[in-house]
Amino acid sequence: MDIEKINSMDFGEFVDVFGNIIEKCPLIAAAVWSQRPFSDLEDLENHFFAFIDALPRSGQEGILRCHPDLAGRDLQRGTLTAESQREQSQAGLTSLDADDRLRLQRLNAQYRQRFGFPFVLAARLSDRAAVPRELARRLHCQPESELRTALGEVKKIGHLRLADLLGADPAGVESPRA
Amino acid sequence: MDIEKINSMDFGEFVDVFGNIIEKCPLIAAAVWSQRPFSDLEDLENHFFAFIDALPRSGQEGILRCHPDLAGRDLQRGTLTAESQREQSQAGLTSLDADDRLRLQRLNAQYRQRFGFPFVLAARLSDRAAVPRELARRLHCQPESELRTALGEVKKIGHLRLADLLGADPAGVESPRA
Repeated sequence: MDIEKINSMDFGEFVDVFGNIIEKCPLIAAAVWSQRPFSDLEDLENHFFAFIDALPRSGQEGILRCHPDLAGRDLQRGTLTAESQREQSQAGLTSLDADDRLRLQRLNAQYRQRFGFPFVLAARLSDRAAVPRELARRLHCQPESELRTALGEVKKIGHLRLADLLGADPAGVESPRA
Repeated sequence: MDIEKINSMDFGEFVDVFGNIIEKCPLIAAAVWSQRPFSDLEDLENHFFAFIDALPRSGQEGILRCHPDLAGRDLQRGTLTAESQREQSQAGLTSLDADDRLRLQRLNAQYRQRFGFPFVLAARLSDRAAVPRELARRLHCQPESELRTALGEVKKIGHLRLADLLGADPAGVESPRA
């Protein structure tokens, strides 16, 4: 998919294709369509990120709360989005043994309790050993910096999803900053 | 469901219950959770509406673009949300004959072309005869005032959905202003 094709999409097509760049937030893709035409992938993703950055804190927390737990309820029930399912599977989180799954569920619950949003991590850049380690580490961060870290992960996820759709090499585009 | 119960919900429960108060925008419910506790239904809905009002114009247009056409593609395909399905059904839009459906589709397409978002109307407060009449009328409005009108309809829809969930008489709560 090239940028000319994207710039020619009506909003229905655009939201169909890009509605889950930010997990369960088609509103953001639908808003970004107002900013077309886009010059390239980086320009397109910068509009997604600028929208996130301009939201009030409650809206930024809201984005995080639309994300599933890693190896959590939605994975067990089969109700993950297609993108999340693939990402959690690539990180090996769909084949944890019962002990590892329970450990992660306990850590996820502690994290939600402390911060008021779920632990968000670009799973494709991690693996089943690193996820609980990173979760245990971030559990002790300060709320302000943790919100910034988590939004940075949302952007990494969005960057990878966009690169998938555009058939781009994700390393060929500057990695988003938190 | 009373307000004490709502105030005791964790964000997962809250988004499960209120995630579609604004059509396909769970982000908004997830953001509103940050504002708890709520004093009553009106307070709760005012937080939804304040979030919408504070969005940049692209975000407000984005909300509208998350709505389906009335008697449109999603209805034909069976991909409406449960709430939209019920509302369009109550307005008689699920049983249009082919001529009326085609007429509405043509008007919807003209409207989308003119404004860059779909025609949004609180269908439960209308009926199959009034919908195309109102659509034809609004097609000639100015874009600025039409955006405000459409967001007013989003609020009416949200008001009715909230009243349903809380078991309240919708007429017992002040109707939202556009």
